[in-house]
Amino acid sequence: GKLPFCAMGVSSVIHPKNPHVPTMHFNYRYFEIEEADGTKQWWFGGGTDLTPTYLNEEDAIHFHKTLKEACDKHDLKLYPKYKKWCDDYFYIKHRGERRGIGGIFFDDMDSPSKEEVFQFVKSCAKAVVPCYIPIVKRHCHDSFTPEEKQWQQLRRGRYVEFNLVYDRGTKFGLLTPGSRIESILMSLPLTARWEYMHTPPESSKEAEILEVLRNPKDWVH
Amino acid sequence: GKLPFCAMGVSSVIHPKNPHVPTMHFNYRYFEIEEADGTKQWWFGGGTDLTPTYLNEEDAIHFHKTLKEACDKHDLKLYPKYKKWCDDYFYIKHRGERRGIGGIFFDDMDSPSKEEVFQFVKSCAKAVVPCYIPIVKRHCHDSFTPEEKQWQQLRRGRYVEFNLVYDRGTKFGLLTPGSRIESILMSLPLTARWEYMHTPPESSKEAEILEVLRNPKDWVH
Repeated sequence: GKLPFCAMGVSSVIHPKNPHVPTMHFNYRYFEIEEADGTKQWWFGGGTDLTPTYLNEEDAIHFHKTLKEACDKHDLKLYPKYKKWCDDYFYIKHRGERRGIGGIFFDDMDSPSKEEVFQFVKSCAKAVVPCYIPIVKRHCHDSFTPEEKQWQQLRRGRYVEFNLVYDRGTKFGLLTPGSRIESILMSLPLTARWEYMHTPPESSKEAEILEVLRNPKDWVH
Repeated sequence: GKLPFCAMGVSSVIHPKNPHVPTMHFNYRYFEIEEADGTKQWWFGGGTDLTPTYLNEEDAIHFHKTLKEACDKHDLKLYPKYKKWCDDYFYIKHRGERRGIGGIFFDDMDSPSKEEVFQFVKSCAKAVVPCYIPIVKRHCHDSFTPEEKQWQQLRRGRYVEFNLVYDRGTKFGLLTPGSRIESILMSLPLTARWEYMHTPPESSKEAEILEVLRNPKDWVH
């Protein structure tokens, strides 16, 4: 049968031109459903994650530290739990790589209380600008080579693979009759590239980021 | 339990640089399995299909006519059936568009006899060069504008969407542990593009191909 529900959220993805400025994505959402017996269920979900083309440790630490501070204000258990959830969620299984260097991700959050979870989600949302904009400012005037741009494009190909093959929001959206396809696929980059059997040379900057995508690191303790 | 099986096939995709030369894909395959009770099952599958960036009716007719002739030598019922199967298979549901202007597609073909089906599949495979190469020769020196190249890139984005979201071979491959990912994803184009809310102007050459992708035509009677 048909159940009354209510859903709302905000999603944003930025795919910068400059390969030294990472891609950033965040989504925060709220759901409410009324079950057949009249019981009301509600939950929040969301997250913020970073996808750099090249690893910059200082940026990674700043990003994770800012998110951790936002979480820690509410409960010290949240950041470690949601950091791991993020690493697990953004996993491109057929590549054995994560989409990016993570951040936080959570779903089905319905305790301790609606007001407290809402305060937590607001803290996360308020952390989006301070976790990301300093990184943009630091790198948006960095010069880059055509080879660096090309590596960015290959990484964007992986971003497309994750979103089309694994992302729950995208899969759910594509299967929903009458869904607004342009909104669902707005997360895809402007351009992407695929090359057969592309493997970066050992000890290159390209191999360095791949290593971290294969074995996620703890950026803050 | 584990069942003895045997599978073989050949797949090829060509994504030309020039937007006036269409993408072509073909795959022909043979499977054999032994069931628990010792019964042997075998079947052939395959197809050849064309994905133009711009519609050229003469090319479309030549392509389909060549495939029809290959089918007609065996059974007049095959081309209409497999032409429709192709239109149905290469459907990007969330776009309401087909990937291209079709061709032939079939699976689970196990009658009238193994030898006769093999002869049919050989006819199809032998038709690949004559259905496609004349089109390449006709257009490979056509000049093109940056706008035409860009439309090709947007169409390649749709190609990626089909292959990652709907293609059975790709989905099956990605889910198979230990599968060779580079072989599975070799069908993806070198580069692709996505634009939010891109709609070509009415009566443009871009709108003309979209019309045919939304409403497949019979190219030969």
